[in-house]
Order: sequence, then structure tokens, then C-alpha cells
Amino acid sequence: MHSPRAPLAFTTSPLDRAGDRRCDPAWLAAKRRASDALILPLRQLQPLILDDASTSGPRIGLLDAVTVERLDLPDGPEVFLGLDGGRAHFARDVTAAPEAAASALLRLGQFRDARASAPFLSPGEIALLGQAKAMIDWHARTRFCGTCGQGTESADGGYRRFCPRCGAEHFPRTDPVVIMLVTDGEDCLLARNKRYGSNRIYSTLAGFMEPGETIEEAVRREVFEEAGIRTGRVRYFASQPWPFPHSLMIGCYAEANSREIAIDGHEIVAARWFAKDEIRTMIADGYKGETGLPRREAIAFHLIREWADA
Amino acid sequence: MHSPRAPLAFTTSPLDRAGDRRCDPAWLAAKRRASDALILPLRQLQPLILDDASTSGPRIGLLDAVTVERLDLPDGPEVFLGLDGGRAHFARDVTAAPEAAASALLRLGQFRDARASAPFLSPGEIALLGQAKAMIDWHARTRFCGTCGQGTESADGGYRRFCPRCGAEHFPRTDPVVIMLVTDGEDCLLARNKRYGSNRIYSTLAGFMEPGETIEEAVRREVFEEAGIRTGRVRYFASQPWPFPHSLMIGCYAEANSREIAIDGHEIVAARWFAKDEIRTMIADGYKGETGLPRREAIAFHLIREWADA
Repeated sequence: MHSPRAPLAFTTSPLDRAGDRRCDPAWLAAKRRASDALILPLRQLQPLILDDASTSGPRIGLLDAVTVERLDLPDGPEVFLGLDGGRAHFARDVTAAPEAAASALLRLGQFRDARASAPFLSPGEIALLGQAKAMIDWHARTRFCGTCGQGTESADGGYRRFCPRCGAEHFPRTDPVVIMLVTDGEDCLLARNKRYGSNRIYSTLAGFMEPGETIEEAVRREVFEEAGIRTGRVRYFASQPWPFPHSLMIGCYAEANSREIAIDGHEIVAARWFAKDEIRTMIADGYKGETGLPRREAIAFHLIREWADA
Repeated sequence: MHSPRAPLAFTTSPLDRAGDRRCDPAWLAAKRRASDALILPLRQLQPLILDDASTSGPRIGLLDAVTVERLDLPDGPEVFLGLDGGRAHFARDVTAAPEAAASALLRLGQFRDARASAPFLSPGEIALLGQAKAMIDWHARTRFCGTCGQGTESADGGYRRFCPRCGAEHFPRTDPVVIMLVTDGEDCLLARNKRYGSNRIYSTLAGFMEPGETIEEAVRREVFEEAGIRTGRVRYFASQPWPFPHSLMIGCYAEANSREIAIDGHEIVAARWFAKDEIRTMIADGYKGETGLPRREAIAFHLIREWADA
């Protein structure tokens, strides 16, 4: 129960981010012009997915520089993702592409939701999609300076934006979220979030961290707010980048000090204790019963399974 | 070596953040008008500190609502910090206060750096300063909408800003930072950062997390970028909110897989291996030698001490 048995979705990127070198505009420009450069287009935050029937199935739409050049795309945020054996990878926002370029892209593949595509791609590809989506989303939300309202400009391969008027610098945002399985001996607490809609899924509690608290304090606060349960010992399990839009899921186990559940009624619409045996059965039978568990891409599933198997 | 022996600075806030209730404007207004409400002024991100010689020394400048009313302050970001036994605490940015109000505030106390004040205050007071500073700083950086450039407005007790033009919502920002002690058996790796200036301090490596990586991946990337050391197993230790401006320090131990140091030369100007005995001596003699360790407010000190004492 100390770490996930396999890498989580959106982790294990094969790329070297080259944090120092990407700040050198000459180095970066040379890498971008190089004939082996690869560019992943995203439209409205959905990456291009190629369905190559001649190979093993879908793969992410990394286009070579010549193809991208021919498309005659408008200037748009472009982000350096990293190097794979010296070969530079970029992500490019093509949301504003004119009709002709958009049609040409759609002859190559489809723009698809990153999470829905995850089951069909390799772990390295999914990690790359996640990084690209989080970065492009941050650029869209940082077009203007929060301090003075002026338009901002991109620098350092897309890892910094700056304000030409007031000089403020803006860096990519990552929102830490605590996600925790509350346990009480052989029982664990799962809840239905209102955003699940009609899906009969029960999952772990979770919530955004706030300024001025530790991970452990955030876990105890969220569990009490959402389910009315007091918790004691908190143990870190694993973390997962979650590009919706740019969170870091920090997975923990929290030991309950009380049993009586009082749901908040806003975010959480139901919650109950599940016995370890019940969880094992749910996992084994593929959730054919009344309730289901979260999908395997989510760290919530791994928190639950590692506990149930321990 | 599994958790810090005492709470870290900026943690263990006594306040209930009342996350649900603070979104109710009527409830919040009543709490703000209540005769027992307390307001902490900050000027240029420095909190008001009162030096009450008649009591036990400095304390944070929580003013009652009547005092604040009399000061005739301009409208400025005000943030709900939480409840202590039903009593509401707020933080208020008074940077734009006119001369008369500023003078009146300076007759009550001094505006002082939050970190420099930490050694003189109680843990609960320091936690409250940290929360206030991080929140007020975020408001100053989010005056305008990053998506469209329009001025934003505050809501939910200061925990949300929204854009009246495009509808974008903005939430308080917390930047996750990995901070790690690299160990190799009885040795640990410490480094001098160029921002320490002439202070002869050696500390742990640290760096901001980037979109698309786990805590463990960020630890390994930063250690390799800054010191050229490959690391294997990473273990979480503890976390600490660090309001400069609004980071979350995620403290870890990382086991070295290599010995030869190659510093980056930009951020890190020196690095070397320290034997456990040497660290113990440095802590015991209060750093009277050539090199020092970080201050006790910093999680870096606790990472080092817990390892040295294990």
C-alpha cells in the first residue's frame, strides 16, 4: 500500500524538459527548425489523434515540421515539450486556424478528448498529451497580465509569460488537489459527487488545497467539510498530474476517528462505508452491480485497489 | 525520519475556514459587522505587528471592527481567514490607505516582514500571517482577467474572483515546490543557491513543479538539473505552506544512484556531500563554523535534522 504497482496515467513522460536550454532562444529556434522536430496540434484543448490502420491503432498526432509549415497556421501559443533522444517535441494551439488549415488537419486525424483517448495510447503518449494540454490551457488563461491588464508575451519555450508594460512575470500554474481514501480498519469511505450525474460511481473524496495549509491539514479539512468525518493519521501514497485543467492530484490515506457521516449536500450527494470484501468483489466482477468505482486512469482507483489488496 | 517532530512554521492554523458558509454573502456580511470581528491589516504584503510591552511581547495586529471603522480605509481586497470559536478573522490590504489612516496604523504598531517576525510569534499567529499574505498577494496578481484583460471582482470571502465581461473564474493559486534531501548512505547532498548571497548557508535542493509530472518525477528532474545526480527511491516527508509568494513546499528524501556532482552554475553555485557526523556537529554548535544550515522556519532544516538524527 506504499506506492502504485504500475505507473499512473499522465506520468512517465519519456521527454527531457531541458529546463536550462529552452530559455536560450537561439537553441530553441534551431531545434524548432530542425528537420526532425515534431509538433502536436491541439484544437480547443483537444489533441490531434491519428488512427493509423496500417499500424497498431491510434497514436498521438505528432506532425513533422514540413507538414506543419505547409498548413500555413496562424501564430498561436506554441510550447516546447522536451527532447526525446535529441529530437524536439512541441505542442501548438491551432484553435484559431483558418478553414483551409483546419480541414487539412482533419484529413490527418481527429481532435479528441485527452482522457477519452487515454485507454488507446501508450503511457508515454498520454503523459505528453497531459503536459501539452495543461500548458496550452495555461497560455489561454494568461493572455493578459493579472496585475495590470496588458497583453502578455510568451518566453522560455512557453514556460514563462511576461508583461511588457508592468514587467510582471507569469509562470505555468499547477493546482495541488488532495485526494484521499478514508479508512476505518476493514472499511473505507466512498462518496458520490454530484458531477458524476447518473453514473453510479462511488469514489474517494478530493478537493483543492488552499493557501496556508499542509497536505495533511487539507486532507482533514476536506474530509470533514464533505463527509463530517474526523481523521487522524494521514499517509502519502502517490501523486498524479491531472490536466483538467492543470491539477496535481496528491493521493493519501486518512484514518477515520469517527464513523457517522454527514455529507455536505452540495458537492457530495451520497457517501457510505464499504467493506474491503465488497470492494474486492466490485473490482473482480467489473462493477456489474449497482455501484461502480472510478476509471483506471484516475489515482482514486489505485488508492482504492491498493488498500483493498493489502 | 517519517514526519517532523514539531509542527513547521506557517502550519497548525487555529482557524476553521468555513468553506461553505463563506460563500453566503449574508452570513459573511453579518460576521464582518459583528462586534467581535478581527481584521489584520497588511501593507505591501507586510502584516501589522503590535509590540505590546505590557504583555509577553510582539503579537499580530488583529484590530477590532470599531478601530478599523474609525481609520476610514479605502476599499481594498479583504479576505475572510476563518473562525476561531465563532469569531471571524479577516485580512485587509491597506497599501492604498491615505496618509492619515497610514499614520494612525503606525501609532498602533509596525508593518513587518512575515518571515522575520516568525521567531517572535506563536505557531497559530504565524499560520494566520502566512494565509493572509498568500491570499492578499494573489488578489494583487489577479486584479485583471488573464483570459480577456477586464478588471475582476472578488467573491466568496475572497476565495474567488470573477470576470464580469467573459465570465472566467479565478481561484487562489498555490505553487507546488519539491524540496528534497538527497542521501547516499551516511552522506547527504547540500548546495549553495546564488540567492543566498554572502550567507555561507548550504541547504537542500528545491524547485517548482511543472505541468505533467509527479512529485517523484519533479524531485528526480530537479536534482539532475541542479546537481547532475541521478536519484532512485523518493520518499515523502512532510509539507509546508510557504507564503513567498504562495508556495507549497513538498519535502522529500531522494536516494542517490550516483556520486559525481555537476552543478548547473546558474541557480546553484556550489554543492558537496556532507557526512552525517558533520551535520550533527553543525546543528550542535549553532553553525559557528564556515558553513551554516537553513533557518528553523524552513522545512529544509527539518529534512536535514530528521535525517541526521535517524
